Amino acid sequence: MKFQELIRKRYSCRNFSDKKVDKELIEKIIEAGRIAPTAVNTQPFKIFWLNSEKAKDNVRQASSCTFGADNFLVVGYKEEEGWERTFDQRNFADIDAGIVATHMMLAIEAIGLSTTWVGYFNAPMLQNFYPQMKAYHLIALFPIGYAAEDAVPSERHFKRKSRDELVEVL
Amino acid sequence: MKFQELIRKRYSCRNFSDKKVDKELIEKIIEAGRIAPTAVNTQPFKIFWLNSEKAKDNVRQASSCTFGADNFLVVGYKEEEGWERTFDQRNFADIDAGIVATHMMLAIEAIGLSTTWVGYFNAPMLQNFYPQMKAYHLIALFPIGYAAEDAVPSERHFKRKSRDELVEVL
Repeated sequence: MKFQELIRKRYSCRNFSDKKVDKELIEKIIEAGRIAPTAVNTQPFKIFWLNSEKAKDNVRQASSCTFGADNFLVVGYKEEEGWERTFDQRNFADIDAGIVATHMMLAIEAIGLSTTWVGYFNAPMLQNFYPQMKAYHLIALFPIGYAAEDAVPSERHFKRKSRDELVEVL
Repeated sequence: MKFQELIRKRYSCRNFSDKKVDKELIEKIIEAGRIAPTAVNTQPFKIFWLNSEKAKDNVRQASSCTFGADNFLVVGYKEEEGWERTFDQRNFADIDAGIVATHMMLAIEAIGLSTTWVGYFNAPMLQNFYPQMKAYHLIALFPIGYAAEDAVPSERHFKRKSRDELVEVL
């Protein structure tokens, strides 16, 4: 599938089937994040794989947006490891985490799985479960699985702004 | 080309040929950004296409990282248009801009063009040239063109951290 088709086909899946996901596929998703570019190659991010039954329970407690999935990845970044632009002291660690997580989101779709990028999770609760997460800003929770047969995009998906609303030609 | 090949082949290109880029291809890149998902579909971003000779001169003045390219896109976001997570008042506009720009970066590669995601540009200088940019946090400058015949990845490109450094399994 070509990239343009991939990004057109992708949607936020909120309904997963019971079909088990091979752990090798989760490793492929992680690999897509690992090789993503980051500002000055700082790689200021961490991927948390919530793999044990206990960890999955914790995720389900921390978010109402797990949609029956059985595999969970969380992405976080450390600001102090990010690159800072001299002109305006802009730290790029947040943007880097966005690049990494976008690579992962698209890889999930490319290998035939589905996800929705969940921002609505209780990050402080997760950080209390796992104190090592307190060092990171947590910006993405990916519930991962095979889409249920009747899964469909939300109405919102079709409500993107027009090209002219989003672009300014100078 | 499959997505996994695309992200493996992509590198930060810092050497462009003189070959002209069809404006239709720039529109395809913009379209890839337009359809990117953002938190709660807020779409708090803007794409600036620095298309006139004057605009290109301004970009070249604002950044030493234009590498002979003749096409420039800049991505910015408005924090006040972003979605805020209730649990910790985390605003997602920066992450959204990261998603949009990553879609664009990968689209550039997918259509046979090259780029490098430049963070090192004088954002305040650009904002002085174009006061409407002051409403946006500017997080990506894409110089776009065909890679020169002798273009190669930097050494840095091959220095990603290992899977075990980047992942914690819980």
